[in-house]
Amino acid sequence: MFSGHFVLVLLFSGLLSGVFSQSFIRIWSGNRNSENLDLISSDRKILRDDNLYCESWRFTVETNDAGLWEEVPKRCVKFVQDYMTGNGYGSDSELVSEDSSSFAATVNISGDGKDAWVFDIDETLLSNLPYYKLHGFGSELFNETTFDEWVDLAKAPALPESLRLYKELLRLGFKVFLLTGRGEAQRNVTEKNLLFSGYRNWERLILRGPSDVGKLAEVYKSEKRSDVEAEGYRIHGSSGDQWSDLLGFALAKRSFKLPNPMYYIA
Amino acid sequence: MFSGHFVLVLLFSGLLSGVFSQSFIRIWSGNRNSENLDLISSDRKILRDDNLYCESWRFTVETNDAGLWEEVPKRCVKFVQDYMTGNGYGSDSELVSEDSSSFAATVNISGDGKDAWVFDIDETLLSNLPYYKLHGFGSELFNETTFDEWVDLAKAPALPESLRLYKELLRLGFKVFLLTGRGEAQRNVTEKNLLFSGYRNWERLILRGPSDVGKLAEVYKSEKRSDVEAEGYRIHGSSGDQWSDLLGFALAKRSFKLPNPMYYIA
Repeated sequence: MFSGHFVLVLLFSGLLSGVFSQSFIRIWSGNRNSENLDLISSDRKILRDDNLYCESWRFTVETNDAGLWEEVPKRCVKFVQDYMTGNGYGSDSELVSEDSSSFAATVNISGDGKDAWVFDIDETLLSNLPYYKLHGFGSELFNETTFDEWVDLAKAPALPESLRLYKELLRLGFKVFLLTGRGEAQRNVTEKNLLFSGYRNWERLILRGPSDVGKLAEVYKSEKRSDVEAEGYRIHGSSGDQWSDLLGFALAKRSFKLPNPMYYIA
Repeated sequence: MFSGHFVLVLLFSGLLSGVFSQSFIRIWSGNRNSENLDLISSDRKILRDDNLYCESWRFTVETNDAGLWEEVPKRCVKFVQDYMTGNGYGSDSELVSEDSSSFAATVNISGDGKDAWVFDIDETLLSNLPYYKLHGFGSELFNETTFDEWVDLAKAPALPESLRLYKELLRLGFKVFLLTGRGEAQRNVTEKNLLFSGYRNWERLILRGPSDVGKLAEVYKSEKRSDVEAEGYRIHGSSGDQWSDLLGFALAKRSFKLPNPMYYIA
């Protein structure tokens, strides 16, 4: 079963009758992708070079202002590469992790074992950066075959900041739920990879079952959080690199957006 | 009547029995504010200078990962100043505006006059940057008296990117609702300022009335959007510099977060 994100993006485009994809096409076929210098806003007279443009592009991506996007703009590939392989990605991840653990420390853990935290997996607990380094850092069309081969290796390293947060949450007494867009067919390799990279003692690993195929990630994840809540769990925190991890219903009290300028899952 | 944001922040802290404010104090009295170089994550060995730290701080603020925060960290005041007065702020605002108008262009405007867009005012339609330039770019404790004196001048300039979007939305046939945390006592100066800076033909200007005093901004704004929806309007888009403009209920189909690293309104 295939559960990669590009199929979801395409599905999303289709479901919305092209509304978002039209918007998408209009943006990316316009000046956002093709020129190296833009003269923005005649009121401000800013000559925008690639770096300034890409900083702003990253702002719109990480705040979800950009909405659905399908690939890193060509003029930003080097920018994304530098961010992901330099100090930026680690530094951002670190502060998100600090915010998360600061909040977690304020939660009054009851003795009933129902205080929960939800983690996404890809680009949240596990890093697929070794794969994306070989595949253009999000600038190449998503390739199901090669990505699944990478997943099957079960060698994705932990995001160190997330692993530290994860251990801290367990120490505090949270029950940890792992909620991923990967399908049940990848359960074994996913468990193997989590153990390989240092994760232990999760309460439950939730993957897409047969009835979840084709659902938007936001709907699928909201439904699964809702099920968890229906069992009496209180979801205090939720960590994910995608807005579809953090929006919808049955939301955590606090949501933590991890950085990811490489791909978008609708 | 006072409607400034700092009172709301304090109120928010109080309402949550100190949960968030404890978190806040823990963060800001720790290493985030006091050192010029941090050695983050022993796994990554990143020596983090002020610029890298402040870039990451801005990430956590703009994604709402930081949650409630009360002032710009001292080590980031120069960073915020450079961002707000250099090209960064304008460039980010420009791309948010482009995303907004790209989405707006996909909306099928019906002939019933019920297609709506909601704008916040401060740091969304109007810029208080001339005030904050004189008051430390968010590093000084909010001063109700001096800020209200500034508001009474009714001389805040438009954010040029927002004014262009605003005109574009009117041209497309949207009804524009202005929803601000300012109080009814500031209605006249607010209208005067909006006209001064080039805004015309809004459908309605909604300010806090007597029954709204003391409500969290997110609750107050959600209730007002809900009222607008109850009148049959379809809220397609919402633009605001604060997450409290964009979260809660009666949400727009798409929300657009404008940059603001100077202050946070709960």
